[in-house]
Amino acid sequence: MPVPSRDGLKITHLIVKDVRFPTSLGGHGSDALHTDPDYSCAYVNIITENGKQGFGLTFTSGRGTEVIVFCVRALKKFVVGRNVADIFADFSGYWRAITNDSQMRWIGPEKGVAHLAVAAILNSLWDLWARLEDKPVWRLLTDMEPEELVSTIDFRYITDVITKEEAIELLKKMRTGRDERIQYLLKHGYPAYTTQVGWLGYSDELLKELCEKYLKLGFTHFKVKVGLSMEDDYRRCSAVRKYIGEKNYLMVDANQAWSVNEAIEWMKKLAPLKPMWIEEPTSPDDIIGHAVISKALQPYDIGVATGEMCANRVMFKQFLQSGGMQYCQIDSARIGGINEILSVYLMAYKLGVKVCPHAGGVGLCEMVQHLQFWDYASLSGTMEGRLIEYVDQQHEHFIDPCDVVNARYMAPKLPGYSTEFLPGTLEKFGYPRGSEWQKMIKEGLFREPDEAELANP
Amino acid sequence: MPVPSRDGLKITHLIVKDVRFPTSLGGHGSDALHTDPDYSCAYVNIITENGKQGFGLTFTSGRGTEVIVFCVRALKKFVVGRNVADIFADFSGYWRAITNDSQMRWIGPEKGVAHLAVAAILNSLWDLWARLEDKPVWRLLTDMEPEELVSTIDFRYITDVITKEEAIELLKKMRTGRDERIQYLLKHGYPAYTTQVGWLGYSDELLKELCEKYLKLGFTHFKVKVGLSMEDDYRRCSAVRKYIGEKNYLMVDANQAWSVNEAIEWMKKLAPLKPMWIEEPTSPDDIIGHAVISKALQPYDIGVATGEMCANRVMFKQFLQSGGMQYCQIDSARIGGINEILSVYLMAYKLGVKVCPHAGGVGLCEMVQHLQFWDYASLSGTMEGRLIEYVDQQHEHFIDPCDVVNARYMAPKLPGYSTEFLPGTLEKFGYPRGSEWQKMIKEGLFREPDEAELANP
Repeated sequence: MPVPSRDGLKITHLIVKDVRFPTSLGGHGSDALHTDPDYSCAYVNIITENGKQGFGLTFTSGRGTEVIVFCVRALKKFVVGRNVADIFADFSGYWRAITNDSQMRWIGPEKGVAHLAVAAILNSLWDLWARLEDKPVWRLLTDMEPEELVSTIDFRYITDVITKEEAIELLKKMRTGRDERIQYLLKHGYPAYTTQVGWLGYSDELLKELCEKYLKLGFTHFKVKVGLSMEDDYRRCSAVRKYIGEKNYLMVDANQAWSVNEAIEWMKKLAPLKPMWIEEPTSPDDIIGHAVISKALQPYDIGVATGEMCANRVMFKQFLQSGGMQYCQIDSARIGGINEILSVYLMAYKLGVKVCPHAGGVGLCEMVQHLQFWDYASLSGTMEGRLIEYVDQQHEHFIDPCDVVNARYMAPKLPGYSTEFLPGTLEKFGYPRGSEWQKMIKEGLFREPDEAELANP
Repeated sequence: MPVPSRDGLKITHLIVKDVRFPTSLGGHGSDALHTDPDYSCAYVNIITENGKQGFGLTFTSGRGTEVIVFCVRALKKFVVGRNVADIFADFSGYWRAITNDSQMRWIGPEKGVAHLAVAAILNSLWDLWARLEDKPVWRLLTDMEPEELVSTIDFRYITDVITKEEAIELLKKMRTGRDERIQYLLKHGYPAYTTQVGWLGYSDELLKELCEKYLKLGFTHFKVKVGLSMEDDYRRCSAVRKYIGEKNYLMVDANQAWSVNEAIEWMKKLAPLKPMWIEEPTSPDDIIGHAVISKALQPYDIGVATGEMCANRVMFKQFLQSGGMQYCQIDSARIGGINEILSVYLMAYKLGVKVCPHAGGVGLCEMVQHLQFWDYASLSGTMEGRLIEYVDQQHEHFIDPCDVVNARYMAPKLPGYSTEFLPGTLEKFGYPRGSEWQKMIKEGLFREPDEAELANP
């Protein structure tokens, strides 16, 4: 049993910080609906009696981070004073308690601000658990017995697709070959794709330069942002196709720009450039719309990918059931932590849908690698048609940054979930009082913080 | 054109307050998942240069209200300094700006805390608009030309079900007879049903007493909470059926207690008691699940009702498209104000689904009556099979409380959206510093407020 003993594991402190990076200055991360993101996070640090610590975060996009930080403060009452060993011994029970408090669930339930805040807290708990076991999170997960792993999951509302018993059975079947797959991961890592070549805010010269750079780095899959202008999209996608050649793969990402019919028409026009998938063609809540788009694009051999804004396991369940999602882009910080993420992997596997996790700035790459490594070792047992997104942002701020070599994520080796910031990052990029922010605000590069942004300590 | 002139209409202040009522003490509002609600709200007051004011709120359930209040503070930057005449002149544009800020949308989009906070702000703007026109909101709406009304709606993501042009056409067709329907409403009001007889926390004696009371008051439709114990549900529903007789109507409400298959099995057992609908049988996000349940219960003549926790128009669209909802229970304060609510009414009408609005404590009844009055006068033109929920809670705190006579909501007559508190309510029930709360906390009836609850001014 990986559940640690109770000694000294009472949580005495939960500290949460608003941390922002000024990515809007360079147009990094810009897409059809998110034109000027400042990659940010709500950063949670839990501390136990004996000094053991966990670090976790949820990714945000600048404005609004203060609301997540405040919500984490409102959730402190479910964390401080608890013994983490008790939490891990009945993790699904704890999960339900923190996501479905009889009063607080009204402001969710299991979606938006409340769920993002819960994600940051749960990520820090998983980080702590792995540190107590002296393992990276993916090894903590792969070393668990199926019964233990599944005991962390709340199956409410998903038993029409998968039950606890079925999940255990699936995992048991895949035990054969697990050790060989772990060795393979340690030696060869896991394939990545790059989103670095085609942000909307980038110039054509930069685009060419980046295609060449990432080809040299060994990448074979390239994602381009689309959705604002058909003409511009066609020109940029044609250019990327020309630079990367016919043997490599092109994916396009509309970031929710279109209505259902518009998505179909737009993609028919881009079809000659052979995109492998269209990502987020429309509202992230439109399951039926995604199913209609998927069906319409099937003859063109274009899959539909979505998930980074999918609110919870019930929404994922339906995307998977309905044929609205050919690539499941699980995110590490939008739904209720690894507990809920595992349930999505299990449903996707049972329903035959490939998981290609969403990543991006501020720790997203650092986290999802653990999930996908576990999937290969313990669940799907294959990398076929699967990739982890890679974006080269903010890795320099982490103690244990992801390590992508020859377009493959190499196995994380340090204990935990890889999202502890280096000393100095909070001092510089804590918002709004960090030294870098104070400097940029003084220089007039950014507006003054408002009342709510100043209200968190 | 009902858009007022710009003079003096710049918004100078937005004040938001956490207001809670200690309803958990009496077991009022208790259901399968919300066992101890303290009916609450985030209460917004906007003030313009010339002193004109608007009042709006979003309903909450106690803990967590502080997060909505904080989010409203974070949204102040989209409100203070704006001229309301400009807002009303391009209300759909404003709606998109406040719901889809390029950075803040990450923490939604259009769901949960962020959308509840937006709802409180938009409700106060609609209240102000109606006051400027010296009309109750339902008259403001019914007096608008179809083009004006539709100009307040953002049709993004719903054009596969209804376009702006179709909406205008539907409304134009229903202009005939509108004045007669308004006169009918003024004279006869609109039928209500009661949820007051069967909260889970109520004793059997109270249940009998309440059935008798509401029968005497003229009610014909009675809703009972179910979902925790089959045996207990059958006993209580049988009792209500016995008290109200065969000619009256019984509805049951599970408040999301069940999985899909469980809901079907449970309701088959309650079918002999002839419930008219089962409300919220499972997760409010499970569109496909509701469609499966609807189909399975059709032979038993039991409809499925849901909507109070439906996150936005895109979710409503799919419930309506998929046959997962036979009664559309729009809420006045969960989605993006009247702007978005109108789009749901239009889709429901086009797809032939009856709207029976969700109501409850703290102003919900006060608001939804305006919506349903408008629907009868301007859109559906019928009351057939339609009812407004009625719960007898907190009406005494409003300047213009709803007036239910002989089981019918009578027409609101004062200008606005009927949610301005009486003088004294904030002083007493403002949380946590109101005099009543200070007293109850001192008496040990309630815990001390926590760090986040104390952090809002």
